[in-house]
Amino acid sequence: MIPGPIEFSDKVLEAMAHPTMSHVSPAFISVFGECLEMLRKVFLTKDPASQPFVLSGSGTLGWDLVACNLVERGDDVLVLHTGYFADSFTECFECYGVNATQLKAPIGGRPSLEEIEAALKEKKYKMITITHTDTSTGVLSDVKGVCELVRRVSPETLICVDGVCSVACEEIQFDEWGVDVALTASQKAIGVPSGLCILMVSGRGIKAYENRKNPPGSYFASFKRWLPIMQAYEGKQPKYFATPAVQLIYALNASLKEILSRPMSDRFADHIKASDYVKAAITQLGLKQLALKPEYAAHGMTAVYTPNDMPVSELLPKIGARGVVFAGGLHKEIATKYFRIGHMGVTATDNDKRGDLDRALKVLKEALAEVGYSPN
Amino acid sequence: MIPGPIEFSDKVLEAMAHPTMSHVSPAFISVFGECLEMLRKVFLTKDPASQPFVLSGSGTLGWDLVACNLVERGDDVLVLHTGYFADSFTECFECYGVNATQLKAPIGGRPSLEEIEAALKEKKYKMITITHTDTSTGVLSDVKGVCELVRRVSPETLICVDGVCSVACEEIQFDEWGVDVALTASQKAIGVPSGLCILMVSGRGIKAYENRKNPPGSYFASFKRWLPIMQAYEGKQPKYFATPAVQLIYALNASLKEILSRPMSDRFADHIKASDYVKAAITQLGLKQLALKPEYAAHGMTAVYTPNDMPVSELLPKIGARGVVFAGGLHKEIATKYFRIGHMGVTATDNDKRGDLDRALKVLKEALAEVGYSPN
Repeated sequence: MIPGPIEFSDKVLEAMAHPTMSHVSPAFISVFGECLEMLRKVFLTKDPASQPFVLSGSGTLGWDLVACNLVERGDDVLVLHTGYFADSFTECFECYGVNATQLKAPIGGRPSLEEIEAALKEKKYKMITITHTDTSTGVLSDVKGVCELVRRVSPETLICVDGVCSVACEEIQFDEWGVDVALTASQKAIGVPSGLCILMVSGRGIKAYENRKNPPGSYFASFKRWLPIMQAYEGKQPKYFATPAVQLIYALNASLKEILSRPMSDRFADHIKASDYVKAAITQLGLKQLALKPEYAAHGMTAVYTPNDMPVSELLPKIGARGVVFAGGLHKEIATKYFRIGHMGVTATDNDKRGDLDRALKVLKEALAEVGYSPN
Repeated sequence: MIPGPIEFSDKVLEAMAHPTMSHVSPAFISVFGECLEMLRKVFLTKDPASQPFVLSGSGTLGWDLVACNLVERGDDVLVLHTGYFADSFTECFECYGVNATQLKAPIGGRPSLEEIEAALKEKKYKMITITHTDTSTGVLSDVKGVCELVRRVSPETLICVDGVCSVACEEIQFDEWGVDVALTASQKAIGVPSGLCILMVSGRGIKAYENRKNPPGSYFASFKRWLPIMQAYEGKQPKYFATPAVQLIYALNASLKEILSRPMSDRFADHIKASDYVKAAITQLGLKQLALKPEYAAHGMTAVYTPNDMPVSELLPKIGARGVVFAGGLHKEIATKYFRIGHMGVTATDNDKRGDLDRALKVLKEALAEVGYSPN
């Protein structure tokens, strides 16, 4: 019950054990090609100029893909800061000589549209980055609002969404909102074991790459290597740069088919419902969330302060002893004083059948009672 | 029967379907920590200063790890060229501003020790790279011989072994020969589905990283991020940079335990035996290998010219129709005129039980007969 790796469906775990396949065999190429086609639907993009990427790696590699292909040394990037992950993304930009300016919100908050507008008017930014859900704080950004703002006041600025903890659980209208790049990883709401980095780039994003003055600063993360490969696989042709993670791609195929068996809007609604359910229980327990306002709270996870500043290291083992695993804190300023509950994928969509949420909340209540906390 | 991804054991495929685990749970940390300890044994290093790395990614990422951590912009590197992979490694070095000089052998050959000695005396190289087995040509390099030579004529030069197609099937005495970095990927003789990049760095290699004038040019591939993580996992402590590929690490644990259930020397001997068996059959069929001399031929794969310059696209489907998959050519100058047979891992060690080799050779014979070729 942590905010990724999440629980996986049986079909996904079965696919993980797929016998060996040549990475250039027609059967595998077709499976990989289908994944790329299906990702377009998950990101809600119909623009043929959009380009999906699936690489062996983690979500972190997605930052490199953005920082070394879509912007370049000397460019200015505005990083909206809602927790730990904006700091790391900033470090990644700086590694490639890109100037990253952070617009920071207090813990549990997010930069206001007014603050973002002021920042965009002060300097011309090549890109703005938004952590859709910051996994360290559970804070949800208003991606749609920021996109509208950027289109109005700084239309040339590329919009990057770090969707590691949001893609396939929070609404992202890639085309309609005008997102230029959204990145995620397999082990969150995509519902596949960790090991894949997933990226969707707009036609405008690809142009920005094509119009670079200098080649990308990384070899493994360079679009120069991967663009022909992704285009070949989606065109059902073999092409080799690096051996793809065959079994993980089979699992991705299985998971995307499950995800797309219903409209994406239903899936988003399920995650809102599950999130409301968890958050209502947390409130009823008298516990405080990190998110300063209800609309700042993500729907794929919930970050909760321990009661009375109790060290999280006292509470989590009591929960673990009951067979449920929550995550500790990650935001360095308050890491010891909060915990995180993930509710993405089958945990959110299949609670009626699986009962993950009910069990987790029951165990939380019992653990709190054991440490002597009562709501009133 | 391609030179990776290879056939996987049942235990490895079972581990691939391991239910979700938190990447910072004590159980997983212990599994990952064990993998790092076991890798020391696979690479035959007892020096505590040696440092193993396991990252989500492919073998290709291993080049980035070498090129951006152990050498830096402006350094000179000597790349021994025995096929396709030396060209790609060269591109990787150039991406990071490292000057790569290739010492090229004709197809099927390898640079002689005399040529290497002359090159090393001509210029001071920070590093020399050796593709142990070039998967494109099946050519085996004399790593031991090159190491002795380098220690004699240019002792400060770091020795890098691209062991993607050799680690765990060809002998590598990491400490004894004085290798400074050896890289591989999970899907070859390590016997785990693709998706992991594996690296062993000597204490001298780590020092070279620590004494860099400038920070590494990549974010995802930087030792700055990974060194504390690997040290933490091996010390059985949680630490986070990027989410590791949990299921692949479980599979790696299972495979390394199988590999280390016998002395590594027995495993190397098994691969020589399997290789001799395949190569004898190839010779008996009147077919010619790419390797110009028997001692240039790798033991984990065999690269074979089609008879009478027949396009490989005519032969491979006849083999595939019989349920066996060989790989086509990869070396661009002759790609259409040869094929590659992989014999690593269980295919080599368990032929008595599995019969992979017997079946492959039988099918090859039948396919050749179908296309009208007979040995005499």
